[in-house]
Amino acid sequence: MTTRKDGRTPDQLRPVTIERGWSEQAEGSALISFGKTKVLCTASFTPGVPRWLTGKGKGWVTAEYAMLPRATNERSGRESVKGKIGGRTHEISRLIGRSLRAVVDMKALGENTIVIDCDVLQADGGTRTAAITGAYVALVDAMEWARGKGHIGKNSVPLIDSVSAVSVGIIDGEPMLDLAYVEDVRAETDMNVVVTGRGLFVEVQGTAEGAPFDRAELDALLDLATNGARELGGLQTEALGDA
Amino acid sequence: MTTRKDGRTPDQLRPVTIERGWSEQAEGSALISFGKTKVLCTASFTPGVPRWLTGKGKGWVTAEYAMLPRATNERSGRESVKGKIGGRTHEISRLIGRSLRAVVDMKALGENTIVIDCDVLQADGGTRTAAITGAYVALVDAMEWARGKGHIGKNSVPLIDSVSAVSVGIIDGEPMLDLAYVEDVRAETDMNVVVTGRGLFVEVQGTAEGAPFDRAELDALLDLATNGARELGGLQTEALGDA
Amino acid sequence: MTTRKDGRTPDQLRPVTIERGWSEQAEGSALISFGKTKVLCTASFTPGVPRWLTGKGKGWVTAEYAMLPRATNERSGRESVKGKIGGRTHEISRLIGRSLRAVVDMKALGENTIVIDCDVLQADGGTRTAAITGAYVALVDAMEWARGKGHIGKNSVPLIDSVSAVSVGIIDGEPMLDLAYVEDVRAETDMNVVVTGRGLFVEVQGTAEGAPFDRAELDALLDLATNGARELGGLQTEALGDA
Amino acid sequence: MTTRKDGRTPDQLRPVTIERGWSEQAEGSALISFGKTKVLCTASFTPGVPRWLTGKGKGWVTAEYAMLPRATNERSGRESVKGKIGGRTHEISRLIGRSLRAVVDMKALGENTIVIDCDVLQADGGTRTAAITGAYVALVDAMEWARGKGHIGKNSVPLIDSVSAVSVGIIDGEPMLDLAYVEDVRAETDMNVVVTGRGLFVEVQGTAEGAPFDRAELDALLDLATNGARELGGLQTEALGDA
Amino acid sequence: MTTRKDGRTPDQLRPVTIERGWSEQAEGSALISFGKTKVLCTASFTPGVPRWLTGKGKGWVTAEYAMLPRATNERSGRESVKGKIGGRTHEISRLIGRSLRAVVDMKALGENTIVIDCDVLQADGGTRTAAITGAYVALVDAMEWARGKGHIGKNSVPLIDSVSAVSVGIIDGEPMLDLAYVEDVRAETDMNVVVTGRGLFVEVQGTAEGAPFDRAELDALLDLATNGARELGGLQTEALGDA
Amino acid sequence: MTTRKDGRTPDQLRPVTIERGWSEQAEGSALISFGKTKVLCTASFTPGVPRWLTGKGKGWVTAEYAMLPRATNERSGRESVKGKIGGRTHEISRLIGRSLRAVVDMKALGENTIVIDCDVLQADGGTRTAAITGAYVALVDAMEWARGKGHIGKNSVPLIDSVSAVSVGIIDGEPMLDLAYVEDVRAETDMNVVVTGRGLFVEVQGTAEGAPFDRAELDALLDLATNGARELGGLQTEALGDA
Repeated sequence: MTTRKDGRTPDQLRPVTIERGWSEQAEGSALISFGKTKVLCTASFTPGVPRWLTGKGKGWVTAEYAMLPRATNERSGRESVKGKIGGRTHEISRLIGRSLRAVVDMKALGENTIVIDCDVLQADGGTRTAAITGAYVALVDAMEWARGKGHIGKNSVPLIDSVSAVSVGIIDGEPMLDLAYVEDVRAETDMNVVVTGRGLFVEVQGTAEGAPFDRAELDALLDLATNGARELGGLQTEALGDA
Repeated sequence: MTTRKDGRTPDQLRPVTIERGWSEQAEGSALISFGKTKVLCTASFTPGVPRWLTGKGKGWVTAEYAMLPRATNERSGRESVKGKIGGRTHEISRLIGRSLRAVVDMKALGENTIVIDCDVLQADGGTRTAAITGAYVALVDAMEWARGKGHIGKNSVPLIDSVSAVSVGIIDGEPMLDLAYVEDVRAETDMNVVVTGRGLFVEVQGTAEGAPFDRAELDALLDLATNGARELGGLQTEALGDA
Repeated sequence: MTTRKDGRTPDQLRPVTIERGWSEQAEGSALISFGKTKVLCTASFTPGVPRWLTGKGKGWVTAEYAMLPRATNERSGRESVKGKIGGRTHEISRLIGRSLRAVVDMKALGENTIVIDCDVLQADGGTRTAAITGAYVALVDAMEWARGKGHIGKNSVPLIDSVSAVSVGIIDGEPMLDLAYVEDVRAETDMNVVVTGRGLFVEVQGTAEGAPFDRAELDALLDLATNGARELGGLQTEALGDA
Repeated sequence: MTTRKDGRTPDQLRPVTIERGWSEQAEGSALISFGKTKVLCTASFTPGVPRWLTGKGKGWVTAEYAMLPRATNERSGRESVKGKIGGRTHEISRLIGRSLRAVVDMKALGENTIVIDCDVLQADGGTRTAAITGAYVALVDAMEWARGKGHIGKNSVPLIDSVSAVSVGIIDGEPMLDLAYVEDVRAETDMNVVVTGRGLFVEVQGTAEGAPFDRAELDALLDLATNGARELGGLQTEALGDA
Repeated sequence: MTTRKDGRTPDQLRPVTIERGWSEQAEGSALISFGKTKVLCTASFTPGVPRWLTGKGKGWVTAEYAMLPRATNERSGRESVKGKIGGRTHEISRLIGRSLRAVVDMKALGENTIVIDCDVLQADGGTRTAAITGAYVALVDAMEWARGKGHIGKNSVPLIDSVSAVSVGIIDGEPMLDLAYVEDVRAETDMNVVVTGRGLFVEVQGTAEGAPFDRAELDALLDLATNGARELGGLQTEALGDA
Repeated sequence: MTTRKDGRTPDQLRPVTIERGWSEQAEGSALISFGKTKVLCTASFTPGVPRWLTGKGKGWVTAEYAMLPRATNERSGRESVKGKIGGRTHEISRLIGRSLRAVVDMKALGENTIVIDCDVLQADGGTRTAAITGAYVALVDAMEWARGKGHIGKNSVPLIDSVSAVSVGIIDGEPMLDLAYVEDVRAETDMNVVVTGRGLFVEVQGTAEGAPFDRAELDALLDLATNGARELGGLQTEALGDA
């Protein structure tokens, strides 16, 4: 079996840590690491919903993703200084938002809004998958906070499943789990998979960066991802403890 | 078998037309329709590459997607007036660019740039897949134009495959091909698949808008999409005739 | 008499076509061609007016003009990507809006808003005059649509006249009608004239691009424009048929 | 004969003053008043031309117009704060630039750039016409400054004519010269006319704000404007004295 | 004692003039000069407050500062054209606003808003201190205007003190008052001090542009500034006369 | 002696921690805490200088400050999403840059650029002073890194002093050191003081938020700040160890 640059086997995650409640300000938060990738996820709860949703008896969950300028090996300019948000940032923010909404029952949430912020403090590949995995933990805590404050009813169950995400890719013809940056840039195909705790798919985003891929390769990647996500789900449960 | 609102079977494309060379200004162009969805695709060829690529002996292909304000049933504000591009526009522009680059040999293209513009004149679902499918036709013509002008060598083969795209989705539990707008809003799962003429995948982007999906559903969608893309490939070939 | 590059006499319009109802989404629409210049004009009707007009018993008509990036011989960057609208675009949008408002009785329109979008699909000179001429056709249909829906009363007459526009210019000392792009760039003086069906002026915008012009030249240009506009008015009537 | 609110006859200018050399920083400047309208015009000379003109042996003249937020009776927000320039500002800046370029021989100017800034300190109608009239004075001085510094040759004659501008309009059916703000808002038709010292037209921009106008009205307005501009030309000559 | 380039002693202000009521449009205004530095200050009064203050029985005073592009020796681009406000502009606007609010009793002002605009027509150092000093005069007049109109009660005393500002700096080791531009660029330390009529500090902003400064230098600068501000306060009183 | 809400004496700093080298990507970094305030400071070294400095044999140091949206008790919108940077952000970025440049010998740095990024992960008052204090540590490490790589000569001494910063303020008439957020909002006067290791002032920025302050109060604040900064200097030395 191939050994990867950092000593992992192809189907092995990097060391994952989840510091739940890292922020003393947010209703829910987690500082998550996938190896050297570190993402601070906060969940901000506010009663009420945006105007377009008012009076429908439903809540709203949305997300914003960003990277600190020196999260990466070379400093990149701030989007606030450029005065506009890049396509990649938009794309990932939307992905995180959709992934979380997929496990939320908006009626049970009631007319409340949760904004998830995922800020990458250090980047080494897999920032969007770490963000989704950490954001779920922050989301759970924000919901528990809201329940404690009476914004969510005692018997409401706004979370219908858990959710985590992992990247997979094909490098030198071999499918691998949870790519670090040096692997990501070499991958022929790169896929991000978002999976619920029950093992269902929320998002499957596969891209041929180099050579297009066939059905067999796609299947192998989906297998790897499903297993990785199951493992991440276990770590989320552990981090959340009795929540 | 279920009959769809517009009379199609679940595995049937809408009527597709490709008006090659619609624009008298661009080096390559196509006005493509997937049912009521109409996208004007132009390919603009310029010798030379952006500064960051200069001197590497490679070309560049990029794409921009936009919608006319009244392409849709309700008018939406212009992004130029808002002063910023929305996340959806960014996401689709990037998807089109990646899809086309996947079938271009940048070395064979040489230090030349092709910008693809896909402007949706009328929208009824599937605008991104129509855009990719039409853009390929425009791209072929721009390359032939460039060959004629001597910008691309006689023996260079910059196109290594063809590419088309189609949407698939699950509606009321049933997988369906090429969703019209009314179907798209009802779909539990929505997937855009970009496939080469040889049947390889370039992009697989599946999203659970409603309920998450399982592996069997994913497989059924991929089967539908592969067949639909094969059919679109045939229509591209026909439109291109002897090019 | 001078023969122009495209075979026209100095006082001759290019072939003009008006495809009424081109868009299946808008309340009114027309795809108009002045030679190779093609502009898609849509009219979007919405009940209600902007806040600053509310409660005054008057309607509002406004217009936005834009060009597809590859409408022209060389691709120009999108204004949405630049994040701002250029002076020329602003100027033309305002001209179209004023021209249409000049023939609308805002009280008869009632508290309703019509937004005209003129998107240049292909440009070969005279895009603003084609836009105004086509926009009038779209406007008529949007008003009829609104009457059908009961937003405009049966006996209300919101349109008090028709309106069309044409460019004229002096080339090599000779006044000419409806300049194509190659003529426009050579013109010493360039004038856009907006005329109502009754032959009154709504806008007269003459600019000396090269040598300033005297009163006699100005008079000759106005004569040409008045005749050209009369002819365009006839084509509008024909396109509208029984509307 | 009608007497106007401020005591003028229909064909009378407001009191016009030109303080040449108001700015101690600019190469040329003038603070011009048309009644209460006050515009500070500066001309900034720099050797060299924008990149797109380099090496063609020609100069460049351009203009920017703006209004202080409290130039008007009600404060309006700053365009810098809004982050974008409005259509009206764009339109007027372009008009001023074209008007001045019409009297400049770019070859005689050589590869030099002059930027005209017209900032309205107080507004009471006619700001664009005052701006053009004052800008010409600033332009003359900037050219003389440049000649003194050797940037323009001793025998070069970059100014081929002088230029001034005035507004005219029809109020209650009567043509009037140089409209003050209270007249401007009531005018059925409003026209800005830019005329050279030799009496030729550079720009004729007539707009029916209320009722469209006929040819006889247009002729009467042009007569009034021509006379007004001749008078302004005399005042420019006087202000410039021996320049 | 050192004589400065313009003949002043180290503790001498430049000639200061205040043209009160320069603008015929604003509720209060002053054109103030500190030597060649000229700033037009207007105060715009509007009944009502921004939404976030509504119903609290308090008023609001805010300020915006800007420079005309050719106020300085070399033309600088307009912030409206760049589409964003620079850090220096932001910083000075905020300083002016805070300085004026320090002498206003917001309760006595009542639910009214005053916007101060300080536009630098010519710059030769000390533009922010001239702006604050002139803005106070405009503010007084706007308040008197409002009292006359009944927006401020007869017995309300919204102004609890007067305020002026002056710059000081250390040049070649010597503390100097009211730096002109040529002095400012050479200063090792530069301090702007805002002082009330009663001699209290509102703002002390000292910056080591060159060498850091010690406590004794800081003390000497504060002494100079306090005296300069007292003199400016006298000039304000004189300009305001019987107000 | 007054005891503060968090148990401190008026002249006591909050617990300060400096995690040097927190980032594995940047050339220098520190995660600094002043109580609950946490700022991640990175220093990015690049050979070369911006164009306007090229060829002058001098280096450049600049800084950017920002706050994560949920650093504060209530979430605030991202400046990247708003598309512009607020005045406060600009002001603080500029302050940090000036403070660091005051202790750098730009000639000894040579033609190299260091960009400091200070991102507030959690905010509880004093974010700008924590940022400056932490940024100095990051700066030292970036310079040592550059020396190791040969970008800075062995005998060059680009750092001529150290620098730290602290806030002071008057609360209920009593001067206090290092204000936490709840203190800051109540302070009548608020001052940020930047001091070098040798005890010289780089910046003194005092603002009367409530009542203006007299000279005696100013003196008391400066004494407190000088002592606080001396203590912070000791902590910096400790964190840097043998650097």
